[in-house]
Amino acid sequence: MITTDILIIGAGPTGLFAVFEAGLLKLKCHIIDGLPQPGGQLTELYPKKPIFDIPGFPSVLAGDLVDNLMEQIKQFQPGFTLNEKAETVQKLEDGTFLVTTNKGTEHHAKAIAIAGGLGSFEPRKPLIENIAFYEDKGVEYFVKDPELFRGKRIVIAGGGDSALDWSVFLADVASEVTLVHRRNEFRGALDSVEKVQELKKAGKIRLITPAEVTGIYGSEKVEALDVEVDGAHAKIETDYFIPLFGLTPKLGALANWGLEIEKNAIKVNNALDYQTNIEGIYAIGDINTYPGKLKLILCGFHEATLMCQSVYNKLNPGKKYVLKYTTVSGVDGFDGTRKEAEKQVVKAIE
Amino acid sequence: MITTDILIIGAGPTGLFAVFEAGLLKLKCHIIDGLPQPGGQLTELYPKKPIFDIPGFPSVLAGDLVDNLMEQIKQFQPGFTLNEKAETVQKLEDGTFLVTTNKGTEHHAKAIAIAGGLGSFEPRKPLIENIAFYEDKGVEYFVKDPELFRGKRIVIAGGGDSALDWSVFLADVASEVTLVHRRNEFRGALDSVEKVQELKKAGKIRLITPAEVTGIYGSEKVEALDVEVDGAHAKIETDYFIPLFGLTPKLGALANWGLEIEKNAIKVNNALDYQTNIEGIYAIGDINTYPGKLKLILCGFHEATLMCQSVYNKLNPGKKYVLKYTTVSGVDGFDGTRKEAEKQVVKAIE
Repeated sequence: MITTDILIIGAGPTGLFAVFEAGLLKLKCHIIDGLPQPGGQLTELYPKKPIFDIPGFPSVLAGDLVDNLMEQIKQFQPGFTLNEKAETVQKLEDGTFLVTTNKGTEHHAKAIAIAGGLGSFEPRKPLIENIAFYEDKGVEYFVKDPELFRGKRIVIAGGGDSALDWSVFLADVASEVTLVHRRNEFRGALDSVEKVQELKKAGKIRLITPAEVTGIYGSEKVEALDVEVDGAHAKIETDYFIPLFGLTPKLGALANWGLEIEKNAIKVNNALDYQTNIEGIYAIGDINTYPGKLKLILCGFHEATLMCQSVYNKLNPGKKYVLKYTTVSGVDGFDGTRKEAEKQVVKAIE
Repeated sequence: MITTDILIIGAGPTGLFAVFEAGLLKLKCHIIDGLPQPGGQLTELYPKKPIFDIPGFPSVLAGDLVDNLMEQIKQFQPGFTLNEKAETVQKLEDGTFLVTTNKGTEHHAKAIAIAGGLGSFEPRKPLIENIAFYEDKGVEYFVKDPELFRGKRIVIAGGGDSALDWSVFLADVASEVTLVHRRNEFRGALDSVEKVQELKKAGKIRLITPAEVTGIYGSEKVEALDVEVDGAHAKIETDYFIPLFGLTPKLGALANWGLEIEKNAIKVNNALDYQTNIEGIYAIGDINTYPGKLKLILCGFHEATLMCQSVYNKLNPGKKYVLKYTTVSGVDGFDGTRKEAEKQVVKAIE
């Protein structure tokens, strides 16, 4: 059982920054995320793209913003449950919460902040009849750990950045990489398309286009794929099939938590603290809605901050909180580190 | 007459960032600030101190944050009325506003965003009977333009960072720099104290401590000061007297605008758009108050953003706004520049 003060669901920028603001208030955080790494959409969908509307950054690559946030919260030692999705919640008699993931990991927390972005990412799956049977038995919709494919034969399907970039990356890891796409044209960063072209010429990536994976063979796990090329069918032996057809965000299990939902988002009290209709459960960032809501990262930062303040007030009833500025008071990490402005001296001049 | 869409009062980080968000919505901004340069407290009070709670910056010097914001908003070409304070406001029949500064500069705007921080900075003045007579006649409470002092004799009074840093800076500009302080000890960055020490030894700064300026002489402008040292009085000839005893923020003239004030801050509707009790006048950042308000820069960024959205909706009634992400849509500057993510290509691999 993992215990924490604030359980954050979603490791996107809003969830990550919440760790910092909570830390200033001496509150510990733990984050659950269904993706294999922190950063949410920024890491999964557009790590190399610039964002222009983060205050103070004329331009920042999404991946760099996540790195910066991870660095900023490091000293507050957040815990992470990655590759798992928050599935059920139970409010205990003392007002605390028990959250269990799809893999059965239990988390006990004093408050919950749902920072789930547009929802958990569900892969778009190819229309292959028996594909469900092979999930986790050779069919992988995410590359969670590239090492899984070391020395193996893999077939990647898709025509976008993910398919291109993973083909390039895994060409050095897998024993054999085949890339299947419905069209001859790929849509992606010029750089990525060119790298695949080179690797194809070098014989490190086998390209089959225009083609489609239409069937899976194997008694207990993936052994081969049926690929349709120009009306003809070919059988390709492989250890793994990785369809990368994009992701669609879904509220998923959170939709059954008894939260007030509007337009696929969670209603919150924006006039005070971004709390949901369930006391102790907050929703911050893109996943919440309220009059005038804008789904912007910078708004999530503000919402995270007011949420932390509200949790602090709940956990410390009657205690008067005096806002301390980090420039004046410094930042004390849970790991014993301290950041602070250079001290002023009082010194005579002779 | 200066005309603009949104007139922003206060050039601190919140006011500056508002220019960016307004720009994304094709709204022009003009900023009034009583200080000689943009940045508000960050530039005036602690430019070299690190801030640790700006999201995405594990640490950023206040002055650098302002520079970054200026760079971020550059392409939206904000206008500035600096060194002047917004004094009176008049709501015209068509709902627009006329704002006049203490120097008579008139601004006509469709909406007003007060981003005045803790208020306009009023200098703490020394208790010298006739000092008011000499203001702008040799007595300067701010160094607005160092060139004013080129080749002149100046006397600076004070014992903090401002007094130290300006003494150092002006030692290269003025013909003669005298620093007067009540104590032998100065309170400031070690580096600043040491530099003054060096310049004193090099004969470039004359130090008189413990001492106090107790009188001003001059028929039409400052000609000399009376300085008390150890009970004795000395007369020091000078062209300028610059007392740097710190600043106190005051709501000032804004207090007479008919705005609802609470605890020296302006009440706003935080449940929607940070508008004040006067339609079309918003208050954002440290100057506003609402339940749960935190005086943090990152909160000002959010408030500025929702304010801009509200102004846009008012000026474009019935027009459905669709949020565009800068990563996807890029940013088009008013100066013709464009920032955008590298385009994807659609390209065949052969």
